[in-house]
Amino acid sequence: MSQPTDDAAILDLIARWTEAICRGDLEGVTADRVEDIVMFDVPEPLQERGIEAYRRTWGLFFAHTAAGPARFRVEEVNIESSDQVAFAHGLLRIGGDQAHCRLTLGLRKKNGRWWVTHEHHSMPAQLG
Amino acid sequence: MSQPTDDAAILDLIARWTEAICRGDLEGVTADRVEDIVMFDVPEPLQERGIEAYRRTWGLFFAHTAAGPARFRVEEVNIESSDQVAFAHGLLRIGGDQAHCRLTLGLRKKNGRWWVTHEHHSMPAQLG
Repeated sequence: MSQPTDDAAILDLIARWTEAICRGDLEGVTADRVEDIVMFDVPEPLQERGIEAYRRTWGLFFAHTAAGPARFRVEEVNIESSDQVAFAHGLLRIGGDQAHCRLTLGLRKKNGRWWVTHEHHSMPAQLG
Repeated sequence: MSQPTDDAAILDLIARWTEAICRGDLEGVTADRVEDIVMFDVPEPLQERGIEAYRRTWGLFFAHTAAGPARFRVEEVNIESSDQVAFAHGLLRIGGDQAHCRLTLGLRKKNGRWWVTHEHHSMPAQLG
């Protein structure tokens, strides 16, 4: 069964992660990610596999955005958890702009703590 | 604990869904979705909430693509499941083109069967 503590632990993980992004702290950003994370990022390429590729995406993001509390915020967070697998989704406010990106996280609990195994960030396409 | 039967049931759900999309069968496409599904679709808007909005996104897709087995294929499917919550991700080949979209599904088991509560479809942005 899912427990309130699982949702709370995942909310806390998301809060630590967003604070690390806002500071530009790559160690904090990657702290709760598995080695073989599969990342679908906002810009190309189609997918990034592995923690080194994941880390590079954040280096690029830090080079193009200003550090501070408005850099990266997650809104309308919804979590569905069991005691082993969970996912979360929300909307992203980047640089203080109106929310214009979407976030989905996939998580697995190992050795009593939660790890992110999959991330999907995107901006909706403006189709003609 | 997750069971091999959970992964198999989710793979089967994805297969039924993609076959319904290829046929243009809206009843089949929406069959395993919850009433309050949250959909992040490839085109705008930022998010769609509820089964009626979800159904409309597929009506639009059907109007712009040709029915047939190449209409919508999911590749490189990866599933993480427990006995209650699961997520899956993969790449999308649409209309026979090279994979150029990404898919993440969030699922919950209710009354002994799996339901999709969240979908995130996207195309990577070409940033300048």
